[in-house]
Amino acid sequence: MSGLSDALVSLEQLADGAVGDLLEFVRIPSVSADPAHAGDMADGAAWLQSRLERAGFPEVHIHETAGHPVVVARWHPHAAAPTVLVYGHYDVQPPDPLSEWDSPPFEPEIRDGKLYGRGASDDKGGVITALLAIEAAVAASGVPPVNLTLLIEGEEETGSPSLPAFLEQNRELLAADVALSADGVIFDVGRPSLTLASRGVVDLEIAVRGANRDLHSGMYGGIVANPALALSRILSSLQDPDGVVLVQGFHDGIPELGAAERTGVAAMPYAADEAQRLGLNGWWGDPAFAPAERRLLRPTLEVNGLWSGYQGPGSKTVIPAEAFAKITCRLVEGQDPDAVLDALRRHILAVVPPGVTVGLQQLGGGAAAYTMPPDLPLLDVARRSLQETFGVEPVAAWEGGTIPIAASIRNTLGIWFLFYAFGEPDNLQHAPNEFYRVGMLEQGAEATVRLLYALAAGAEIQ
Amino acid sequence: MSGLSDALVSLEQLADGAVGDLLEFVRIPSVSADPAHAGDMADGAAWLQSRLERAGFPEVHIHETAGHPVVVARWHPHAAAPTVLVYGHYDVQPPDPLSEWDSPPFEPEIRDGKLYGRGASDDKGGVITALLAIEAAVAASGVPPVNLTLLIEGEEETGSPSLPAFLEQNRELLAADVALSADGVIFDVGRPSLTLASRGVVDLEIAVRGANRDLHSGMYGGIVANPALALSRILSSLQDPDGVVLVQGFHDGIPELGAAERTGVAAMPYAADEAQRLGLNGWWGDPAFAPAERRLLRPTLEVNGLWSGYQGPGSKTVIPAEAFAKITCRLVEGQDPDAVLDALRRHILAVVPPGVTVGLQQLGGGAAAYTMPPDLPLLDVARRSLQETFGVEPVAAWEGGTIPIAASIRNTLGIWFLFYAFGEPDNLQHAPNEFYRVGMLEQGAEATVRLLYALAAGAEIQ
Repeated sequence: MSGLSDALVSLEQLADGAVGDLLEFVRIPSVSADPAHAGDMADGAAWLQSRLERAGFPEVHIHETAGHPVVVARWHPHAAAPTVLVYGHYDVQPPDPLSEWDSPPFEPEIRDGKLYGRGASDDKGGVITALLAIEAAVAASGVPPVNLTLLIEGEEETGSPSLPAFLEQNRELLAADVALSADGVIFDVGRPSLTLASRGVVDLEIAVRGANRDLHSGMYGGIVANPALALSRILSSLQDPDGVVLVQGFHDGIPELGAAERTGVAAMPYAADEAQRLGLNGWWGDPAFAPAERRLLRPTLEVNGLWSGYQGPGSKTVIPAEAFAKITCRLVEGQDPDAVLDALRRHILAVVPPGVTVGLQQLGGGAAAYTMPPDLPLLDVARRSLQETFGVEPVAAWEGGTIPIAASIRNTLGIWFLFYAFGEPDNLQHAPNEFYRVGMLEQGAEATVRLLYALAAGAEIQ
Repeated sequence: MSGLSDALVSLEQLADGAVGDLLEFVRIPSVSADPAHAGDMADGAAWLQSRLERAGFPEVHIHETAGHPVVVARWHPHAAAPTVLVYGHYDVQPPDPLSEWDSPPFEPEIRDGKLYGRGASDDKGGVITALLAIEAAVAASGVPPVNLTLLIEGEEETGSPSLPAFLEQNRELLAADVALSADGVIFDVGRPSLTLASRGVVDLEIAVRGANRDLHSGMYGGIVANPALALSRILSSLQDPDGVVLVQGFHDGIPELGAAERTGVAAMPYAADEAQRLGLNGWWGDPAFAPAERRLLRPTLEVNGLWSGYQGPGSKTVIPAEAFAKITCRLVEGQDPDAVLDALRRHILAVVPPGVTVGLQQLGGGAAAYTMPPDLPLLDVARRSLQETFGVEPVAAWEGGTIPIAASIRNTLGIWFLFYAFGEPDNLQHAPNEFYRVGMLEQGAEATVRLLYALAAGAEIQ
């Protein structure tokens, strides 16, 4: 184990450089959802390529896809050691609303030990944390202790539409014994976790159209349908006031919640004042399930955006020509993303009010939920590495968000996908003032170094 | 009547100058709804003042109000002649969406005999048409044939919130025998009309708030209410899919439709392909009333704008912190604007879904509907002047829109308010590519000149 202790010493020496890397990486506004940022996406991939080459990877390629490119780096120095596939993404969420950022989203700043910027936590911090671990191991051992393949995609924030096909077409290139996700969050600040599951996702944009132009409500009020009102009618038919989804077929295939899951999520030590800190009197939702069940084990339907007509100051008496909504659903085990999307389409088209037409468009690719057996040996070695790093037992956790690639990798490459990333739930991912704690670069990298050396030493995976 | 024939000759000579006036006036982006245009509003009032002084008005004042200023110009050369109050407005609707204009809204252009620009028709064209008539009469007779008071306000497009108080406080200054509105539309292109009524209006902005920030739907989906969905639920409770308003108390005070009104609106010669030209298969709305009744004699409720969360390209998995809607209602005879607003507030606050809070704000002042008796002598003299100008009998018309001042003037100054303006319903008022037909400056002014000389000659008003 002298490799490990040397690597931990190197890690301390390399940590400052990793902060510089993260600042550089966040400065690239790689917003995958917005076509105006196509050039920045290419810059993000190019930055990674050159940085990984500098880290010593003998083989780094940018692979074009139907969407944004995928970066794959391989370093396989061992004949006998296991191969570890590390997954991350270089794309980020859109930064809106810009006015709510205390410092510009793509001009990262460190304040009070936090590095602020869009993507600082999700997932550029995750990628740089993994890179720091690898460079520390290489500094100690000359080469990585295991064979490494890095797979850094550019479409995670839009549902990874190109990745399933990329995995199918590159099974050999990506063949490995286990996958680690450098994207994800630990349970709470200072509380590492072992994530056993993640929810899936599907999305749909609804466009409701009336007349071929905005109309004066004094001239046409009463004889031309209002698309904003028609959209409201459609949206309010999708779920009841407690959030129970009313779409026929939506829940098809979902097994009853098991006792182990219910007990597991109930044991997750959420902060008692979590709702209060969000300005809420308490949690909302379906009274048939406990809050922890609703947020982790049950499917959801959300309107993420809504727009129609005049949004400026004062009043404007128009009947808008169009109204739009963006919808996403979180999916759980048993739900088929395509079937859920079909059920949504059927429901919406069946409730279109008179006088308008409706167009539906899927924006990203759907992703299924992912679940691991709690007694998997791989989880034990991960638990030990986390315990040794953080000094506390990691929380067994369910993830309410989506790592679209989890089910894809499991199904396509036939390997387990271990959540092993160090974002924290207070990092304001997907919101203004996103940040990553600078200290998590070193702490997350230490946990990763420990895991890599344990795997190199022959720890059981399956 | 030599004054009249001389005035009609002068009118032809002055018409080109009026086109120049309208181009200049439209170039001032006097958007009353948007505080960013406060300076442009002041410019609009100042432009009018200097132009009216140049026209010979001995008394032109800009009166400050709680909102935008009112311009009042007086020229009372006669001891015995009647006094005519001419009403118009120098404010315009917001120009959004800018991308749909073929030429910039505040860089007016003449193409095919149409002057394009925001406010070209509503109501800068109307004001310049009245001014052309006055200058033609003055050129012929040295002074106007009647005593004139011009009242040009700057808040029509936001519901004239300051005008009722201004009228109350300036009864003497504004005392007159009859009011003419230089704001409004004729029935159709080439079809002048005599408008017998206009609808009132009230507005309300709804703000729905959930958590104190946008949240990640993967972390909080299922336990935090979605304001966009809650807003949809509130909006869809306001009326049924056919547009029947479901708000208790909304219809209070509305008399049953009279046979004369039903016959009157049924006789209005709408184009057979009007719906088709708007891209619609036919009219929508409450089957209990005929389309002409719904658009003119019945109250409406519209959502004019809607916004929440992410509106950019692609998908963003947030639970928005807030959602907003702008609502306006058109009111008919018998409805009290304040009572309707109270009914709306009560309804909305009674249907707020769990997990969100709601704020309500009135944006403009409410206005009551206005109705004239069809046998009023004033309507006869107006009918003759229009007939002589256009060569056809004017259509007896009901106006579905709102001239907020109509009921105010009737109630405060005790005089009739005659709709005598020459916008046309195809002018795209309140929409991109608004225009005014250049020829309407001269034709509308001719009708106005004829009316002024008829009133000067002693035509009966009451």
